[in-house]
Amino acid sequence: MKKHNFTSGPSILPPIVFKQAAAAVNNYNDSGLSILEISHRDKMFLDIIEGAQVLVKELYALGDDYEVLFMQGGASAQFALVPMNFLNADETASYIDTGVWSDKAIKEAKLFGNVSTAGSSKESSYRFIPKGLNVESNARYLHLTTNNTIYGSQFHDIPNSGVPLIADMSSDIFSRPWDAKRFDMIYAGAQKNAGAAGTTIVIIKKDFLHTINKRMPMIFDYRKHADNQSLYNTPSVFAVYVSYLTLQWIKAEGGLAVMGQRNSAKAALLYNEIDRNSLFSGTVTTEDRSLMNATFVLSKPELEPAFNEMIKAAGIVGLKGHRLVGGYRASMYNALPIESVQVLVAVMQAFEKSV
Amino acid sequence: MKKHNFTSGPSILPPIVFKQAAAAVNNYNDSGLSILEISHRDKMFLDIIEGAQVLVKELYALGDDYEVLFMQGGASAQFALVPMNFLNADETASYIDTGVWSDKAIKEAKLFGNVSTAGSSKESSYRFIPKGLNVESNARYLHLTTNNTIYGSQFHDIPNSGVPLIADMSSDIFSRPWDAKRFDMIYAGAQKNAGAAGTTIVIIKKDFLHTINKRMPMIFDYRKHADNQSLYNTPSVFAVYVSYLTLQWIKAEGGLAVMGQRNSAKAALLYNEIDRNSLFSGTVTTEDRSLMNATFVLSKPELEPAFNEMIKAAGIVGLKGHRLVGGYRASMYNALPIESVQVLVAVMQAFEKSV
Repeated sequence: MKKHNFTSGPSILPPIVFKQAAAAVNNYNDSGLSILEISHRDKMFLDIIEGAQVLVKELYALGDDYEVLFMQGGASAQFALVPMNFLNADETASYIDTGVWSDKAIKEAKLFGNVSTAGSSKESSYRFIPKGLNVESNARYLHLTTNNTIYGSQFHDIPNSGVPLIADMSSDIFSRPWDAKRFDMIYAGAQKNAGAAGTTIVIIKKDFLHTINKRMPMIFDYRKHADNQSLYNTPSVFAVYVSYLTLQWIKAEGGLAVMGQRNSAKAALLYNEIDRNSLFSGTVTTEDRSLMNATFVLSKPELEPAFNEMIKAAGIVGLKGHRLVGGYRASMYNALPIESVQVLVAVMQAFEKSV
Repeated sequence: MKKHNFTSGPSILPPIVFKQAAAAVNNYNDSGLSILEISHRDKMFLDIIEGAQVLVKELYALGDDYEVLFMQGGASAQFALVPMNFLNADETASYIDTGVWSDKAIKEAKLFGNVSTAGSSKESSYRFIPKGLNVESNARYLHLTTNNTIYGSQFHDIPNSGVPLIADMSSDIFSRPWDAKRFDMIYAGAQKNAGAAGTTIVIIKKDFLHTINKRMPMIFDYRKHADNQSLYNTPSVFAVYVSYLTLQWIKAEGGLAVMGQRNSAKAALLYNEIDRNSLFSGTVTTEDRSLMNATFVLSKPELEPAFNEMIKAAGIVGLKGHRLVGGYRASMYNALPIESVQVLVAVMQAFEKSV
């Protein structure tokens, strides 16, 4: 049976990416070699990583004033590397606290310097995106998590900050047209909209990169990675290739404008049903709802086992909410076809009739 | 034409691993999902990573007094993480300097504490493995690189140290029976004998792990990774799977005893020809030659273009020496069949006759 994959990440990718990636594991580009056995210094891989870097810039309309890096360790490593590189002990960084991932980023930053909270919805169980930010004018940078995978909220506007802006876009990178030029740094674990687990996309404005004035282990220094075109050490070759394929697919489909239209349509379809169907309710303030991860609960929790049965019978996987929040979470990344959302909505309607 | 892949890494893996990995990218284990789109918290992946951890211990006959972690960032990240976790500012760590990778590990360690050199062959262009080590009795640990991929030298005996022993085994892990119990920590980028680029195997004795008494970013703390069974953050799912497949293959072939026999036979075949053929000479002291990476040069460098032509015509790839050393390097990891070495030796003999 066809699966409808709503998993929060690692998550669904386009079928053509799976097909091309599998073929490359057997025989990359008719080279007689698997993609897994070629050197990262081989021309074949240099073409892949350079191609991927070019596509990242092209999709976000960024010029040569930005560096694109492929690193390892996911956003969790970036939580530490951002302050390790940019925050001196006597400086302050501003963070917006919108959930678990923001909180982890804040905890790591506190090991390196001072942290001030520009806004937080923690006291309200992260049900909304804080407005009216309080950013210290001399802050080294303002950090935000653009989409909150666990709680299902998302920034729909880029905050005005007056200081360098750094975004963790792990769960909504490449999902909509956004003015990337307003950010001094963007990072994202690839495993949602940008490929498979194992590589992390880091976009840094060169002017901002050059403000680093600390000494740290070479492997953690953004300058080292930029100076070596992400080949300071062996990158995650296959994962970079899967990102390259995914970026090619995004471009071929029409780029971020088309991704944004599709994602809006999918989210509208599901949120309309959540609001219409008396058995369900959303957990996030309407205006801050995520287009990527729709979180919702059953108004009668005792109905969960019956609903779970119907979901399963329809081939829907990955709909369980995060253990911190409970309920349900429908992750609708770029590669999720609207047909899968239609199937979910049909199940919700059938369930309503059945109880 | 069939390729004979002597690349130094990422490098050749067993054909069955490519076949199984490619199949999993299309449809993992008949789940209807690609290995690239399943959650790292899914039972399917938990079975993979637990299975891989069990096999690492089984192959090295290690008990429950050791932790096996799958991390990211390669050995280069471990160069920094080892002293970040284990070396306090007022302490001294002892390092054996046997090449580029040892030197990088030493440079990172110096950021965290004192480093004393237990032995070095730097002044002799790293042509041998230093004997008669000078290990400080109160050193926090002794660090060595068991195999030197670039220079082609290898430890054939485990040094006596009297202090905790830490080994970078990136290029010879699982290549021979070795008494792993003598090490307090072993780490290795997977991309030679243990899988594809993108994951790093870290084996730590629990007693040694518990000596960590520093505060550091959570993502860099070995204790966090151990406490969370390598799922503190999203691991490199596909790369861990490829390691699992590779470990299964090693076990099915007969384990480390068989790997060691095969690797010795391949190395003997090639070194015998290097020593017999007057056109070639090895670059490393005979007793310290690596079974993994045989480095050699042409006695008449002007013959290189002609030899390169013959290599290429035979389908041999990856034989170029590292840019720091020049000449040739034949990497003969576990998965390289002896037939490929026979082809190389035949080319060397044909070349001798042709000039």
